[in-house]
Formats: sequence, structure tokens, C-alpha cells
Amino acid sequence: MVDIHAESNLGGKKFRGALVQLGYESAGGQDRDGILRASLAFEVVHNAFLVHDDIMDNTDLRRGRLSVHRRYATLGEEKFPTRDADHFGVSMGINVGDLGAATAYEILIDTNFPPEKVLAAIRRLNRVIIMTTFGEALDLGFNPLSPDMRPRDILRLHLYKTAEYSFAGPLQLGAILADADVDTLLRLSKFALPLGISFQIKDDILGMFASEQLLGKPVDSDIKEGKNTLLILKARELGNLEEQEFLDYAYGNPRATQEDLERIRQIVKSTGSLEYSEGMMRRLADNAKRNATKITSNPQWQTIFYGLADLMTARDK
Amino acid sequence: MVDIHAESNLGGKKFRGALVQLGYESAGGQDRDGILRASLAFEVVHNAFLVHDDIMDNTDLRRGRLSVHRRYATLGEEKFPTRDADHFGVSMGINVGDLGAATAYEILIDTNFPPEKVLAAIRRLNRVIIMTTFGEALDLGFNPLSPDMRPRDILRLHLYKTAEYSFAGPLQLGAILADADVDTLLRLSKFALPLGISFQIKDDILGMFASEQLLGKPVDSDIKEGKNTLLILKARELGNLEEQEFLDYAYGNPRATQEDLERIRQIVKSTGSLEYSEGMMRRLADNAKRNATKITSNPQWQTIFYGLADLMTARDK
Repeated sequence: MVDIHAESNLGGKKFRGALVQLGYESAGGQDRDGILRASLAFEVVHNAFLVHDDIMDNTDLRRGRLSVHRRYATLGEEKFPTRDADHFGVSMGINVGDLGAATAYEILIDTNFPPEKVLAAIRRLNRVIIMTTFGEALDLGFNPLSPDMRPRDILRLHLYKTAEYSFAGPLQLGAILADADVDTLLRLSKFALPLGISFQIKDDILGMFASEQLLGKPVDSDIKEGKNTLLILKARELGNLEEQEFLDYAYGNPRATQEDLERIRQIVKSTGSLEYSEGMMRRLADNAKRNATKITSNPQWQTIFYGLADLMTARDK
Repeated sequence: MVDIHAESNLGGKKFRGALVQLGYESAGGQDRDGILRASLAFEVVHNAFLVHDDIMDNTDLRRGRLSVHRRYATLGEEKFPTRDADHFGVSMGINVGDLGAATAYEILIDTNFPPEKVLAAIRRLNRVIIMTTFGEALDLGFNPLSPDMRPRDILRLHLYKTAEYSFAGPLQLGAILADADVDTLLRLSKFALPLGISFQIKDDILGMFASEQLLGKPVDSDIKEGKNTLLILKARELGNLEEQEFLDYAYGNPRATQEDLERIRQIVKSTGSLEYSEGMMRRLADNAKRNATKITSNPQWQTIFYGLADLMTARDK
């Protein structure tokens, strides 16, 4: 049986693969080697996406080392001193991401599941990819300080970029390979979608308020990048004119001082926006937990799904 | 029966789709609606690749209109005046290309061919994508003026980026859906690979020597971009020291004058490099034509394959 605690380090490398396995085994799948192999497809496509994502987000470091496009930029600088090294890095990054996605399909095709199950799994993977590109487009086009934005816009972003991609997609892909019926797939998404959105809200809260030591990444980066979060959208909505103007100036401003960042956090708290996000997060987590016990009639799997929801929403890093 | 002359405008939009259809029908496939639908997958993935390719090649115009990433850059400039519009354009271009590739798989999955055939077709599509990313990497890493480069390096580039991608891939994907045996697939590649390489050599000759009016694109662009061609590699190899130094200075130099470009063409001719490329092109085309008659025992299809090779290599634009 899948040990979620052991297999996952939250947001880490093997988390989505473990969910593929969980979806498969909870739906009665028995081929443990086969599903381990298939789950690799999700990990590979995830890493391919990260390569493209790091280009879009201008991310220089990934897991403490140079991101792929920055690594190639460094190589380009050495090997082609007369060319534009940054452009070479971006080009190779696009290329490597494309290669990674193709490799993921290849892995699924090379499993021994029946062809019609593999096709259904590939279709599910495609839907994940398609929704993720929609999510990326929203993310690129949104401005959380715009008065036109509504909380549900941010929730839709979390749905596409996190809930479908990291929760419902892997669980359902596993279940599909175990020949689960449509009802089981539906029950899985009723569990996975609120859980995923709740997870992302928590992630954004930690990204703004957790200490750097605990989180392992600079806790200012979300604010400096102007990340699309419910926290900032709601603070902008609830703040007074002076607070709104300050957020417009400081949020997403790479030149913001430590004091500015602290004032942003202060506004998010004093306006009640933090409380609002925490409430939303809790309601969604509770929703997921209630639905956890409806996925299967097997109490053992119910406990695991419930525990997963608990683990994902109670984490402090 | 496929009318190659009518369906294709060389290098145009429907050429690869027509080859999917040709591969299918010549291998005995009867489902004309089904293969038309499936062939769309190749067109879609091709266009997805062009979107990524245009980013890598800094191409601003595609088919006489703004390329996708440049179009989004323009949109970004309007909508987000404070952000980096070029970066927004590149990000959206990456995203649209990713979406396109996923859509291509979706199209194949949604056809009515037996699941194991569809899986084999997806595997073939994957191989095309994988080889194309290898080809892109070679293309990005090559320098045709480097004394370390050999003609076979350029031929390998043409194999990956043109012969597999635009000829063998589509033909074999079609044949696979018609349930062709391995021998048929092999005979198709013995025809398609030399044809594809020959086609690309011809393309490079036209890119350097054809008149702009005939070609419909600026005939200086290959030279100014420093494109990886057999023509320039061989001219560099065969030229005297003074000619080598001039090529090193002028080829791929965006500031090269019209006189410089003319001198490059002159060197390619006087060194015998043009003749060398033409010879290589002819031998490969002859090879393809000989193999055209071995693909099937049906004289009608033999004539079509032979005519395709003839059309592709005799074109003057």
C-alpha cells in the first residue's frame, strides 16, 4: 500500500507519482510494477513543465541548482561567446521541455496495460496538460491588484494549475489504469479538487508568512514577484485608499524594501484578508475530508485519503 | 487517391497531412474520413513546433503575419505597459506550443482506429518529436564555419529536422494506421529519408540563390542568420585562407552589405561547393526514386511515389 508520508515530500519530486499509485491501488489495481512505471510518466511531464515554467517565471535556481535554461545559458556563454547566451538558454530550455513531454507519453505507451486503458490514460494526461496551459495563460495575464479581479478568478487559477495538475490528474490517471468506472473518477475529483485548491491557498499563506528557514526558500519571493494570490487580491479589495495605493506601489516591486514587505504583510492581516484566506482554505479542506470517506467503501483506503487531506492542509512548510 | 500536386503547396500547410494520407492509402487503408482526421494531428503538431521554432529563431513574421510570440508581445505591450512585453510574448508562445502538441495527441486518440494502432501511431509521433528536438539542439549548437564540422553533421541535421519530421514520420504514421508490416515501414523510410535530405539541400540552395520574387521570402535571410547549410560548410572547407576569413566575417553577420552577400554566393560557386551540394542532392534524389518503385508492387502507387520524389527535387521555389 502506498505510504504517502514516506513517498511524498510535499511539493517534492515523487509526490505526483505517489498519487498515481494511490489512485490505482485504491481502485483495485494489482500490478505494482506496472503502475510504478506508469507513474513515472507524470513525474517526467511535471519536470518538463517545470523547465518551461522556469523560463516563463524567470527562475534562475531550481532545487538549489541552476534551472535548465540558465544552465544552458552558462554553457552558451562558454561555447559561443559571440552569440546571445540568454537566448540560447531559453531555446534549449524550450527544446528540453518538449523532449520531456514526448518522453512521458513514451513511458505510458511502453507499459503493459491494455491499449484502451493506456489511451484513456494518455487522454487524461493531455487534459492535465491542456488545463495547465490554460492556467499558465491566466497566471501570465492576471494582475491581483486589478479591481476587475474576483476571488473566483484566483480559485480558477488554483483549480487549473494545482488542483487538476497535482491532485485530480494523477489520482484519476492511476484509477483509469485500474479500470475504475466513471463514478469512481467523479468521486476522486470531488475529493481532489477542493483539496488541491486548499493546498494552494495554504502554499500562498506560507509563501507570505512562513519563516525562510522552515520553508527552505526565500519567503519574500512571492511578494517580490507579485504572485497571483487570494491574499493580495482580498487585501487590495478590503484596504482603504491609502493601503490600496501602497499595495499598488510595493507588491510585485523588485525594489521593495524589507520594511515595505513587512507593511504588505501587515495590511494582509489588518484588513482581514489573511483570515479570509484561512477560512476559505479550511472550508475546502473540510469539504475534501468529507469526500475522502466517500471515494471507496473500504475503510482502510478511506483512512488513507482522509490522512492525505489532513497532511496536505495541516503542513507548516 | 491522394493528389500530391493539389494537396501540397511545397513547404505549405497541408503537405505533411497529405503524406500521412499517402502512407495510409498506399498501404491499403480504406477509411478516408478517419485518415483525414488523423492526418490533422501531424499538421497541428507541426504548427505547434513552428510556434516554438519561431521563438528559437527570433522569427517575427510567419506566413506574412506576426508570429505567435510576437503577436502576444504586441498584446502584452498594450495590456501590461509596466511589464516586459517580449518576455510575455515568449512565455505565451511556449504555452501555445505546449497546448498545440497536447491537442495533436488528443486528435489521434479521438479517431476510430483500433487502440493498438492509435498507440503505435502516437509512438511514431513521439519519435518524430524526439528526433526533432535532437535536430533543434544540433541546429542551435552547430557553427557551419567551424573547421570541426563535417558534411555528415549537416546531413544528420537534415535527417532529424527534415527527413524524419516531414517525410518518413508522416508516411509511416499513415502506414501504421493501415496496419502495414515492418517491411513496408522500412521500405518507406528507405524512400523518405534520402528524399527528405535531398529536399533540404535543395531548399538551402534555393535559400541562397533563388530570386526573392520566386521564393516569396527574402533570399538573404539564410545568409544573414548564418543557417547551417552544406553550402557554407563546404565553401569554408574548400576556400583559400582569404576566402575563409571573409566567410568567417560575413556569414551570419546581420550587418553584412549586399556586396558582402554577393561575394559569399560567389565563393560558394567558385570553390565548387554549390556543385558539391547539387551532386549530393541529385544522388539522394536518384536513390529515393529508385526506392520509390520498391515500396509497393502496385504500379499506380509506384508512379505516385516516384512523382513525389520528382516533384520535391525538381522544384524551383
